[in-house]
Amino acid sequence: MSKRESSGYKGEALKALINAGCQVGDVIRVTRYEKTYTDKPSSRNYGGKPVKQPCEEKAYEGILIPRSETGDDKHIVVKLKSGYNVGIRVTPEVKIEKIGKGTKPAFASPPLPEQKPELPKVIILSTGGTIASRVDYRTGAVRSALSASDLYGVVPELSDIARVKTEIVFSIYSENLTQQHWKQLAKIVAEHIWQGTDGVVIAHGTDTMAYTAAALSFALQNLPVPVILVGAQRSSDRPSSDAATNLIAAVQAATRGPFADVGLAMHETLSDIAIAVSRGTKVRKCHTSRRDTFKPVNGRPIALVKNNEIIMLTDNYQKRDAARKLVLKPEFSEAVAIVKFHPGLNPAVIDWHVKRGCKGILLEGSGLGHVSKYCFDAIGNAIKRGVVVALASQCIWGRVNMNVYDTGRDLLALGVVPLEDMFPETALVKLMWVLGQTSNPKEAKKLLKTNIAGEFSPRTMAEEIGVEGESADGN
Amino acid sequence: MSKRESSGYKGEALKALINAGCQVGDVIRVTRYEKTYTDKPSSRNYGGKPVKQPCEEKAYEGILIPRSETGDDKHIVVKLKSGYNVGIRVTPEVKIEKIGKGTKPAFASPPLPEQKPELPKVIILSTGGTIASRVDYRTGAVRSALSASDLYGVVPELSDIARVKTEIVFSIYSENLTQQHWKQLAKIVAEHIWQGTDGVVIAHGTDTMAYTAAALSFALQNLPVPVILVGAQRSSDRPSSDAATNLIAAVQAATRGPFADVGLAMHETLSDIAIAVSRGTKVRKCHTSRRDTFKPVNGRPIALVKNNEIIMLTDNYQKRDAARKLVLKPEFSEAVAIVKFHPGLNPAVIDWHVKRGCKGILLEGSGLGHVSKYCFDAIGNAIKRGVVVALASQCIWGRVNMNVYDTGRDLLALGVVPLEDMFPETALVKLMWVLGQTSNPKEAKKLLKTNIAGEFSPRTMAEEIGVEGESADGN
Repeated sequence: MSKRESSGYKGEALKALINAGCQVGDVIRVTRYEKTYTDKPSSRNYGGKPVKQPCEEKAYEGILIPRSETGDDKHIVVKLKSGYNVGIRVTPEVKIEKIGKGTKPAFASPPLPEQKPELPKVIILSTGGTIASRVDYRTGAVRSALSASDLYGVVPELSDIARVKTEIVFSIYSENLTQQHWKQLAKIVAEHIWQGTDGVVIAHGTDTMAYTAAALSFALQNLPVPVILVGAQRSSDRPSSDAATNLIAAVQAATRGPFADVGLAMHETLSDIAIAVSRGTKVRKCHTSRRDTFKPVNGRPIALVKNNEIIMLTDNYQKRDAARKLVLKPEFSEAVAIVKFHPGLNPAVIDWHVKRGCKGILLEGSGLGHVSKYCFDAIGNAIKRGVVVALASQCIWGRVNMNVYDTGRDLLALGVVPLEDMFPETALVKLMWVLGQTSNPKEAKKLLKTNIAGEFSPRTMAEEIGVEGESADGN
Repeated sequence: MSKRESSGYKGEALKALINAGCQVGDVIRVTRYEKTYTDKPSSRNYGGKPVKQPCEEKAYEGILIPRSETGDDKHIVVKLKSGYNVGIRVTPEVKIEKIGKGTKPAFASPPLPEQKPELPKVIILSTGGTIASRVDYRTGAVRSALSASDLYGVVPELSDIARVKTEIVFSIYSENLTQQHWKQLAKIVAEHIWQGTDGVVIAHGTDTMAYTAAALSFALQNLPVPVILVGAQRSSDRPSSDAATNLIAAVQAATRGPFADVGLAMHETLSDIAIAVSRGTKVRKCHTSRRDTFKPVNGRPIALVKNNEIIMLTDNYQKRDAARKLVLKPEFSEAVAIVKFHPGLNPAVIDWHVKRGCKGILLEGSGLGHVSKYCFDAIGNAIKRGVVVALASQCIWGRVNMNVYDTGRDLLALGVVPLEDMFPETALVKLMWVLGQTSNPKEAKKLLKTNIAGEFSPRTMAEEIGVEGESADGN
């Protein structure tokens, strides 16, 4: 393997590949003497003593693929026949063999289909992640490009739904996105809307997609058309991929949805039957790997996309209206922290954040909105120094009610802002956004309590979805 | 109101009550001119402008009840007819009137029923919280006592199930419990087991009950009999109370359950039909107020208690065996922190924890087990300095898989320990427990990966409950 063709490999990994005469694209076999502990049913032992697993030989066969972004120098990555990628650490126990000549990755794009002038216009923005980087992923090479012709090559149905334009905004794993990326993305979305698109689709890594959805919900107010985030849990080279189904539904929702809100389109269940479009402030990634990982929290999805129909599940939306004037408020504060309460939490972490110049702290409290009394002094001091301290519940579901127990009442008396039925992630993003709008704590508190983008559900809605009573306790 | 009878009131609140001639136990009316912003459906406005609510007069009628523990000097607490307690801030706009003479709270206990010698023995330990402090709560006064006669007065069914002994261990809101309380509680449970009880029930506040359940699961190994935690979301003076149903089921599970594990007994659904007994390491409070707030995560409950029957839902349990010798390991480290990853997380918080002498950090990562690359340096430095850094997913459900993406592989290469399908709260408690057993990072990592109390589900179980595949991606 020459340096030029090493495609991201360096150090030990590169050396081992050169020694084995392997190049990216080659079919290789990697044999490893397995020593890693694995958690198998037979290893369960309540007495606390680990049951040793027998050592075994493990072999992987597949295509050697390039490493990307922040790759280390110790692993090689093989795409198995199943479509999975496996990272294998290069050690003296690992043997690498070339067993077949590689075919160069080919990205042959079909000619662009005719754009039908009667169809609505959509802009598909890509930011990175499984859906964007692998939607045209065939032979093992990662390609984080998203051109219109790439898309039509993989998802030809799109040309019957809309006139598609595409733009690569970032090619970043979503865990590396920050407030600055939200700002830039909000501005680009606004430009496309001002230029008259009928809908916006944003392809996004799923890890922080819900955070970005909340951020855009606050930054893009008074929307004339829908803005739909979409991701994939399985890349399109795998039989169980949700990439195409999700993308088609997102384009349908963006171009034909009667609502003009920020939404997030992903599988409703494990089956391909329906894609749920959830409100950007009311949705959370709740499973590491399932296709129906995004769950609405304290509310129902806005709509389902099913059999090419858009089925509205609520009347509670802003109607699409091309004449409405978008208001762009893309600033987010970076001086905001989350403090998750747990037994034994050291309250000094609150003091430290304040000392570092933190302007807002989101407490992830327990139950109806509690933290240990050992934290009261630190919280009181923070508030006295002008820090906005707000609280959402780590329960995730339900509504905080800080009037039921002394602990809650004491926190209210200190000046903590209860965030109703917002779950911690949306609450954190809102606090960042609020402190991007104002540095006045009093104004910030007022804005925090104002329903900007459906982040507070009305109590009637909470009851509809089975949340009981309004002053329920449970300390 | 005399000082002696003020029952927790002080400052402004006490002054207002004295002026109004009101005593604890009196029926009072409190009228307040309402200025607080309330989130009603009509106030929703997507443009970001708050819609002002009209000011209104609000009146509360009920019994003036005493304040407890950490009460401030600004609120009075009234028990409404509905059974709810309302805290009302005393301001110049608030008018207090006495409208009826109070009856003194009476706690008449019936004579203790005959203990039937053929019944199994159970010890009910109380730690505080709704279930313990109010189970004999009738007229408004808080009573955090739990004597056998109190219990029989409220839940006479207990005398047909078991020979009940009771002990008050703490009377503490569960958010104020720490590692020291877990240790003390574990020792007391062990003593009762060594004395030959047939089962242990622990009445606990629900806020941190799942943390305590996990802690006891690690601290009490090789159990001969069940240890069941139980709480209530609604106090027993309210029509919708779950206190008695949960307690009866907990006593049934503790005395007749064929399993000898730490379990947590609470409503399976909103109805009273079934109480689910979940594994102590696999259960989480997932709703602020619903009675079915505790949900099994990545597993099913061990058993249901339904129509006085115990229905086992799994074969995967340690069988009850009075001859088995309990192993007590009650030490928990206090030098453990949780760092919840989010976009914009300041990695300096990791450095700060290390500098403060932290020995273990639980990363609450995104998706399959990721944090931003901006945190890599801080994590690497922590690990180099001997800190054990482990990772669980903030998705809560599913299993981390750090071999799928570069980010995960890089974190593994740094030495981060992936915690399979443990959710963050149990993972945190396990890290505290592990570092209570050893200060050697290598041993700690080994122990972290060992299945001690069913905290890792076998993959087959994960599939059974619908978790797909073993190497699913979704970045």
